[in-house]
Amino acid sequence: MCQLLGMNCNTPTDICFSFSGFRIRGGRSDVHKDGWGIAFFEGKGCRSFIDVQQASDSPVAELVRRYPIKSTNVISHIRMATQGRVALENTHPFQRELWGRHWVFAHNGDLKDFHPRLVGPYQPVGDTDSERAFCYLLHHLRNEFASAPSPERMFPVLRELTARIAGHGEFNFLLSNGDFLFAHRASKLSYIIRKAPFATAHLTDDDLSIDFNEVAGARHPVPGRATLPLTDKGTWNGFGGRRLHLFVNGDPVISESTPTSPRG
Amino acid sequence: MCQLLGMNCNTPTDICFSFSGFRIRGGRSDVHKDGWGIAFFEGKGCRSFIDVQQASDSPVAELVRRYPIKSTNVISHIRMATQGRVALENTHPFQRELWGRHWVFAHNGDLKDFHPRLVGPYQPVGDTDSERAFCYLLHHLRNEFASAPSPERMFPVLRELTARIAGHGEFNFLLSNGDFLFAHRASKLSYIIRKAPFATAHLTDDDLSIDFNEVAGARHPVPGRATLPLTDKGTWNGFGGRRLHLFVNGDPVISESTPTSPRG
Repeated sequence: MCQLLGMNCNTPTDICFSFSGFRIRGGRSDVHKDGWGIAFFEGKGCRSFIDVQQASDSPVAELVRRYPIKSTNVISHIRMATQGRVALENTHPFQRELWGRHWVFAHNGDLKDFHPRLVGPYQPVGDTDSERAFCYLLHHLRNEFASAPSPERMFPVLRELTARIAGHGEFNFLLSNGDFLFAHRASKLSYIIRKAPFATAHLTDDDLSIDFNEVAGARHPVPGRATLPLTDKGTWNGFGGRRLHLFVNGDPVISESTPTSPRG
Repeated sequence: MCQLLGMNCNTPTDICFSFSGFRIRGGRSDVHKDGWGIAFFEGKGCRSFIDVQQASDSPVAELVRRYPIKSTNVISHIRMATQGRVALENTHPFQRELWGRHWVFAHNGDLKDFHPRLVGPYQPVGDTDSERAFCYLLHHLRNEFASAPSPERMFPVLRELTARIAGHGEFNFLLSNGDFLFAHRASKLSYIIRKAPFATAHLTDDDLSIDFNEVAGARHPVPGRATLPLTDKGTWNGFGGRRLHLFVNGDPVISESTPTSPRG
């Protein structure tokens, strides 16, 4: 099982603070040693940093911790391999283009016997259940919509597809195109919404404290979400039950439970 | 116009040395200030580093210069914007998946009136002529071959597509899927093949010298190619005329002139 960290904001914000604690879980304070990755959207552009070294030791992770990349949507993942060997092609987040936009996906969980027939343009490069699930989602979304729908129109289709995949096992995921962020919680995804005035936060895994007023300015709410609370101050909300959530501009817009579905 | 640097080797090799000189062209010793990028293949996996800061000042470029990523196929690009604003989505190399493999593309040149109708799964995210050309190539290659062909079977199809695009203007490019590298020379692409025993090379743009025997070992030829000679020792071969080249395992395998084609 892996770790997920996501951020969705209304103003480009750097994630150095949250990432500082998150990366420590990659090998030092947790068992997630099989690579890590982080994708930043900057407008329509997207850049990913991925590494098969454990995050706590990775020079690339050290760069990300120090180099403030301002982004409205960020997805990060620390891997503990369940399916697929430790290799760059199996490292999350995965990225593909759909409707002329980049889409980024990271998964926490383990899908059993999930080998859908994928005949379209989205073919897995590696051999993880996660990349197969991502290709499956994009394949069916592309079949459903000839051009980009609004996230509200996309929601029920994604929820139905998610339910089909979740019939195969634990399926927590984060999915974004840079304009909005979908989060599916199967078991343990939680999130925090930080609104001004921000309290000083203190990372539980590292020795760093930070005043959000100083960093983000009092005008900008800076929501964030993660599999586990990273800070010991502030209120972390556990997503209730198996639910799909849509976040736009830092606000939870839609949240609906994922129906139980037979294996699809 | 931009700068291209490529490497194709038979053994994973780091490109820190060549990149040291190349990045200096990005803002300091040349006029290419509009971002830069580099993609490394590690087996089937691929990771790109892109930045809109000029390469000579970019902290990400500094990481790449210092962090030896061993790769058999590398494509790097330093941008001077001709079409498309300075933005992450317009920064080369571009990446897409085709036939279950990542493909990476970077372009030097300027294509006039090149607005092909792209109705398939490859849609540009940004607004450069270069990304349109990449999508055009992948669209037609996918239509021609249902699954991955050998590079030798792909060659004549790519050569024909290249000729069509080159009817619109200067079209130097590098294209790789991690197994092999295609290079098209319209005007000024050159390459060097370094075979053991390697001479000590000295970068013309920077103050660094290196003994290739020490780095690569005497057993491993380390070919590389770039738009301009980076070193002042060794023999750089200018590609003759407008030609498409295929490199596999560090060797030039096929080289054929690109036919003159009406604008397609």
